[in-house]
Amino acid sequence: MKKKFLATVVLAMISGQAAAQSWVLTDAESGTDKGNWQVTSQQLKLSGESFSLQQQVLHGGKQEGSKVLTLTSQNGLTIALSPTRGMDLLHVSGHGVRLGWDSPVDEVVNPAYINLESRNGLGWLDGFNEMMVRCGYEWTGHPVTKDGVIYTLHGKAGNTPASKVEVTVDDKAPHEIRIRGLLKEHTFKKAKLETWTELRYVPGSDSFTVHDVLTNQADYPHDYQIIYHSNFGAPILEKDARFIAPLKSVSPFNDYAKQGLDNWNVYGAPTKDFDEMVFNLVPKADSNGKTVAALLGSKGDKGVSIEFDTRQLPLLTMWKNTDTLKQGYVTGIEPGTNYAYPVTIEKQQGRVKQLQPGQSTEFVLTYSLLKDAHAVQKVEQRVKQIQGDEKTTIEQTPLAKE
Amino acid sequence: MKKKFLATVVLAMISGQAAAQSWVLTDAESGTDKGNWQVTSQQLKLSGESFSLQQQVLHGGKQEGSKVLTLTSQNGLTIALSPTRGMDLLHVSGHGVRLGWDSPVDEVVNPAYINLESRNGLGWLDGFNEMMVRCGYEWTGHPVTKDGVIYTLHGKAGNTPASKVEVTVDDKAPHEIRIRGLLKEHTFKKAKLETWTELRYVPGSDSFTVHDVLTNQADYPHDYQIIYHSNFGAPILEKDARFIAPLKSVSPFNDYAKQGLDNWNVYGAPTKDFDEMVFNLVPKADSNGKTVAALLGSKGDKGVSIEFDTRQLPLLTMWKNTDTLKQGYVTGIEPGTNYAYPVTIEKQQGRVKQLQPGQSTEFVLTYSLLKDAHAVQKVEQRVKQIQGDEKTTIEQTPLAKE
Amino acid sequence: MKKKFLATVVLAMISGQAAAQSWVLTDAESGTDKGNWQVTSQQLKLSGESFSLQQQVLHGGKQEGSKVLTLTSQNGLTIALSPTRGMDLLHVSGHGVRLGWDSPVDEVVNPAYINLESRNGLGWLDGFNEMMVRCGYEWTGHPVTKDGVIYTLHGKAGNTPASKVEVTVDDKAPHEIRIRGLLKEHTFKKAKLETWTELRYVPGSDSFTVHDVLTNQADYPHDYQIIYHSNFGAPILEKDARFIAPLKSVSPFNDYAKQGLDNWNVYGAPTKDFDEMVFNLVPKADSNGKTVAALLGSKGDKGVSIEFDTRQLPLLTMWKNTDTLKQGYVTGIEPGTNYAYPVTIEKQQGRVKQLQPGQSTEFVLTYSLLKDAHAVQKVEQRVKQIQGDEKTTIEQTPLAKE
Repeated sequence: MKKKFLATVVLAMISGQAAAQSWVLTDAESGTDKGNWQVTSQQLKLSGESFSLQQQVLHGGKQEGSKVLTLTSQNGLTIALSPTRGMDLLHVSGHGVRLGWDSPVDEVVNPAYINLESRNGLGWLDGFNEMMVRCGYEWTGHPVTKDGVIYTLHGKAGNTPASKVEVTVDDKAPHEIRIRGLLKEHTFKKAKLETWTELRYVPGSDSFTVHDVLTNQADYPHDYQIIYHSNFGAPILEKDARFIAPLKSVSPFNDYAKQGLDNWNVYGAPTKDFDEMVFNLVPKADSNGKTVAALLGSKGDKGVSIEFDTRQLPLLTMWKNTDTLKQGYVTGIEPGTNYAYPVTIEKQQGRVKQLQPGQSTEFVLTYSLLKDAHAVQKVEQRVKQIQGDEKTTIEQTPLAKE
Repeated sequence: MKKKFLATVVLAMISGQAAAQSWVLTDAESGTDKGNWQVTSQQLKLSGESFSLQQQVLHGGKQEGSKVLTLTSQNGLTIALSPTRGMDLLHVSGHGVRLGWDSPVDEVVNPAYINLESRNGLGWLDGFNEMMVRCGYEWTGHPVTKDGVIYTLHGKAGNTPASKVEVTVDDKAPHEIRIRGLLKEHTFKKAKLETWTELRYVPGSDSFTVHDVLTNQADYPHDYQIIYHSNFGAPILEKDARFIAPLKSVSPFNDYAKQGLDNWNVYGAPTKDFDEMVFNLVPKADSNGKTVAALLGSKGDKGVSIEFDTRQLPLLTMWKNTDTLKQGYVTGIEPGTNYAYPVTIEKQQGRVKQLQPGQSTEFVLTYSLLKDAHAVQKVEQRVKQIQGDEKTTIEQTPLAKE
Repeated sequence: MKKKFLATVVLAMISGQAAAQSWVLTDAESGTDKGNWQVTSQQLKLSGESFSLQQQVLHGGKQEGSKVLTLTSQNGLTIALSPTRGMDLLHVSGHGVRLGWDSPVDEVVNPAYINLESRNGLGWLDGFNEMMVRCGYEWTGHPVTKDGVIYTLHGKAGNTPASKVEVTVDDKAPHEIRIRGLLKEHTFKKAKLETWTELRYVPGSDSFTVHDVLTNQADYPHDYQIIYHSNFGAPILEKDARFIAPLKSVSPFNDYAKQGLDNWNVYGAPTKDFDEMVFNLVPKADSNGKTVAALLGSKGDKGVSIEFDTRQLPLLTMWKNTDTLKQGYVTGIEPGTNYAYPVTIEKQQGRVKQLQPGQSTEFVLTYSLLKDAHAVQKVEQRVKQIQGDEKTTIEQTPLAKE
């Protein structure tokens, strides 16, 4: 038993880092598939904050065969992600607070059961329930048909099963855990984009980092777009919850959002027929390009923040979907290279980026669960500090019409 | 061994009913998947009519991973249904008579291999071979494109893997068996319809009941449509086989069916180039809303009847597909809320129903295998009784043009 | 252990042939699925050239559940095919030469993850990386939309999981191995085409034969089209590699190919922005209808040839895709009933064939790895011999405009 266990452990020496143990859970190249799998800090005889890592293969309905990998830190966070669904983060919890939301879609849908082109490019909605879903990388945004080709809602990455999944645990305290997953967007003559997604977490901490590296493996330049669609409902989202971020400007996504401009950064209670308002934001950053956006509960005693780098992700979308609880009471904080307009409009307006052959680009986002008033105040101060004296411009006109 | 067996048995006390044993074969919530599974009345030490229940996971071709659950009653019926395909009934047999038909599609196709949008919305035909397939519930009918969205042939329920599958056997004689399956039509912003399908069967009997409860779990009203597409070929369908039902009126589905109006309720032998004729029927019911439709063999010594409630399913479609044997020699008896016109036409003509938030509606259909002349005569009498003196109106004009 | 092994062996007496052992690896009818499986000549106690046969179930990414069956002959060829992908040949190697190519698509993609209709009918490109993929049989060629139906690129056979897979090994030396797979293109009212694919190989040999039998199992005539899309990259394809075949005529597929007519049968080095040139060829055959086409390395010391029967496959397409290595440096030698124009054009120009009800047709192609100058010269002589004195006509005008 013990032998078998050790046999699956690879001792890896990562350059300049402490020695670490790592496990390959899935590998298309070698044919590895660990299926149901678990390891605990106790088994690893690691001192410090106790944690466990568990992969489970789901069954039933449209989640047949979907995998969920859950990292549980006793005094910190529990983070669940799905290798089958683009390493998307399903939900996170800690200190009695849940990061995530309640979608009408309640299964972890295997992409084999999704047709992204259905409903005229809205098939993505058949699987959407994540706390964070990668919308990219070949394209993102609302669907559009051009020359007969449907550019489906929010691209394909979030519905792409990872080709390789690795878990690494540092030998040295504080035993940082890294979960890596490789997403391939490969189509002959069309694309060879590869993204190494990585989640970094130190047991006991209230923060984790998403560190993704996108590479254009083709011999030709390739456009790319990415929106980190990060979604939060109760308990943080509630009547009078607030969105904060240092901002240069705000503009409404469309005419409907224009009606909500006056109060755009304060949330209402679940509201029938509210549907969704979307706001295009230009974040302001510190001298290193760093910024932060946060959702804060009405009492200022809990929240969630996302720190990101505006040199990597220069734009921010705020999605206010304060409809009824069953319809999906949720807000999206969405750092991106782009807004959520169709790729045709983003291209026309000059926001679509490009990678040269072999070129890589990285995206680093730190998510923090704000468990108390102190944590909330710290983020508020940081936002004020970056905002400084500059006023946020409120634009009245949508950037485009779909 | 015995322990393990007992461990999987849940003793359930259903309110007002006898104690029963039940098994959860599939459950998306708990991750349960029994895979290949079997239980017999002998194992359960039940006296009375002997029976067995068996679930099998299929392999090969496009049926890879499809599940089939078969109920076998030694002196009664053998009923096969597929949890992977919307709890559809594949085929039923007993007393040397088969209910079902021979489709060119001879595999139990896993919906993972079906694109419902293919062939301009006819992808459903890649899997169609059931004795009874639920055509609904978000929409039904012939495909149509509206605002760029394809409403695919006969909706999605029949190609939706069940999220939960339970089998229950009454402890008390006559040990009624209930097979329940939960179908979810969940799409963010579009639908949250759930259907608990149920098949009820008493071992030794020649009848079984389909008892489905559809619930709109959303906070908004939602349209629904359902056609219980019930299909029969040889040996009941044959030259001079007859369709009977108490009817207020008959109308041809289209101009082609108009040509067959004179003889609409009598079947021909397999006929090259016959293709299909469809007739829209308005059933007449007894004072409780109950009615019955039946297919009778030419000699009046075998048949199949479907009893249903016109308050639940007010309309009836008769599909006459007496083409060649290999092309599919089959007739459909299809109680429904709707006819088979595209949803746009059904909506326009006021036949599409709606469920309010949280509202449920039920559909109960009793299928009987008519094994001899006596059984056939009983149904004929029932039809005559309900028809009474009222003549069936024969309309010459199709209700709509597609 | 031995008992179990023997139990899986079926002793078969094929009419007029030597006794043979055979294994059913997959069978939709009986529910057979051997999964990971292996047999060796040693286990079978066969003398002569040693060989092994191994089936592996892949995992990870979009190849989850895909099967690969590999035949390895120590002194001959290693041939890998995928039952999940229409019995397509993935790659072949022997004597230090590889037949196949490096596609940007590097997984054996399970068709469950492919939507053939995506990108306006180009979804096939999400899985294209085979040495030989069957493009047919319901239709082939470039995608086209007619009456709302998308005829997707190169049809469905190559993305159809085999319904039955059998391996047979002759008891008698030289122990010919036959790998058979059944592909079903079944759609109610649309098609019932079945293809028994067969690969025949004698251990130690440098050649193998593809022997496919297509049958129209329907009661109605059905059109069919097939292109045996056979693809080769390095090491045979290189600067100054040559394509040879006895030909009646050559014409450019489109205006772009017209520009390359002068040098159409000689290859350049990997060339940025070359994209693809396609040439329509009419092969010349010997008095028995047999012909051969070959790709030869620049030094004349290696190559690959395909012999086929022009009574079965009267046309030949040469696909010159000498773009960069990462983009896919590859050429296609594609015997077929058709050229690669959309089915609408092929139909209009009278090249689409038809099978009557119950009628079968066969396609036999022999692939040879040309390991040295001697083997190359033999094929060159054969081409010259068939060509004789007749000059190849070079047409300047494409046959059609897409």
